[in-house]
Amino acid sequence: VRGRFITLEGGEGAGKSTQARALTARLAAAGLPVLRTREPGGSAGAEAVRGLLLGRSWDPLAELALHFAARREHWAGSIAPALAAGVWVVCDRFFDSTLAYQCGGQGAPRAAWEGLRAALLPGVAPDLTLLLDLPVEAGLARAAARGEENRYERLGAGFHGRVREAFLAAAAAEPDRFAVLDAAAPAAAVAVAAWDAVTARLGLS
Amino acid sequence: VRGRFITLEGGEGAGKSTQARALTARLAAAGLPVLRTREPGGSAGAEAVRGLLLGRSWDPLAELALHFAARREHWAGSIAPALAAGVWVVCDRFFDSTLAYQCGGQGAPRAAWEGLRAALLPGVAPDLTLLLDLPVEAGLARAAARGEENRYERLGAGFHGRVREAFLAAAAAEPDRFAVLDAAAPAAAVAVAAWDAVTARLGLS
Repeated sequence: VRGRFITLEGGEGAGKSTQARALTARLAAAGLPVLRTREPGGSAGAEAVRGLLLGRSWDPLAELALHFAARREHWAGSIAPALAAGVWVVCDRFFDSTLAYQCGGQGAPRAAWEGLRAALLPGVAPDLTLLLDLPVEAGLARAAARGEENRYERLGAGFHGRVREAFLAAAAAEPDRFAVLDAAAPAAAVAVAAWDAVTARLGLS
Repeated sequence: VRGRFITLEGGEGAGKSTQARALTARLAAAGLPVLRTREPGGSAGAEAVRGLLLGRSWDPLAELALHFAARREHWAGSIAPALAAGVWVVCDRFFDSTLAYQCGGQGAPRAAWEGLRAALLPGVAPDLTLLLDLPVEAGLARAAARGEENRYERLGAGFHGRVREAFLAAAAAEPDRFAVLDAAAPAAAVAVAAWDAVTARLGLS
C-alpha cells in the first residue's frame, strides 16, 4: 500500500518543526513506517540548490525555478520512493510555501508558480496539508525569542501579513486538502488537533 | 530602438563558437553595438547553476528546471537589458539546445520543456536562430580533433543523432525563426551564409 503524504505549512514561529516531530512520533507509535523531511533541502541535491539560493540574489522567476528544481529533486529522490515503499512522509514545508512566500509575499507571478508545478510535479499533491495559522506579530515574537533570524524575518510585518493571507487563501481554495489549525494554542493542544485531522482525513483510528 | 536577438544552435563540433565570433565582428563592423554571450552560463548566477549541474547527477526534470533557472537569470540579468538598450545579442546556444539535448537526446518530456519556457520566459524568442547542421560523425570527429570531450560527447552516435533530428524538427516547425546552414562547408563559407541570413531576415544591408 502506498504511504500518505502530509505537509506542514505556516509562517515564521508557527511551530512547524515541533509539530512535525510530534506527528512523526505519533505515526510511528501507531506502527506506521514514517519519514520526516523538510524544505528547502531534504536531499543532497536539493541542499546544494538551497546553498545557491542563499548565496546571492536572483531574478524572481529564476528564484522560483530554483525552488522548484530543488523540490523536484527532493520529490523524485526521497519522497516519491518512500511513498511507493509504503512509508508515510511528513514534510515541513512544500509547494504551498513557495506560493505564500515568493508569490504572496514577494510578488512573483502566480501563473509562473502554477506553470512550474504543472511542468515539474504533474499530478503531485499532499494527501493532507496542516496549516499552522498564527497572527503575524505572535509568530515573529516567537521566532525572535528563539534567537532565530532568517532572511524572511527581516522583511517586516507587511510581508508576513501577505504570506499569512496567501496561506489562508490556498486553504480556502482546497478545503479537502487543507486543515487549518490554531497555532496560537499550546503546542500539546496543537498536536492533538493535528492528530485529530490526520485520523479524520486519512482514515486512521 | 530595441536590439535584435540572434542565437546559434547545433551539435558538437558544428562550429558555433567560431561563427558567433565572426558574426559579432561583422555586426560590429557594420556599426552596431553587439554583445556576444553563451549558454550554459553567460552571467554570474547562471555560471553558478552550471557548476551545480556538472557537479552531480540530477533527476531529469530537476535538470531541466536548473537549465531554465540559469537561462532565466541570463535573460533577465544580461540579454534583456542589452536588447532594451539597443544592443544586438549573439548567443551561443539558447532554449533550443535544451529541447535537443535533454528532450531529444535524453528523453525528458517535451511538455515539461514547453511548460518551463512558458512559465519562465513568457513571450521570449530569438529574432533569428542559425542552426549549424552537420552529420553526426563529422561533428564528433571535429570535436575529438580539438581535444575536447564533454559529458555529451561520450554519449555515442545514437544520442547525437537524436539531438540532430530534434534541432532539424524545431527548424522545420518554425521556418520564420530558423535558418539552417550547412556546417560541413569551410568556416569562411558558413560565415558568408550566416551573414546572408542575418541581412535577409533582419533587414540589414
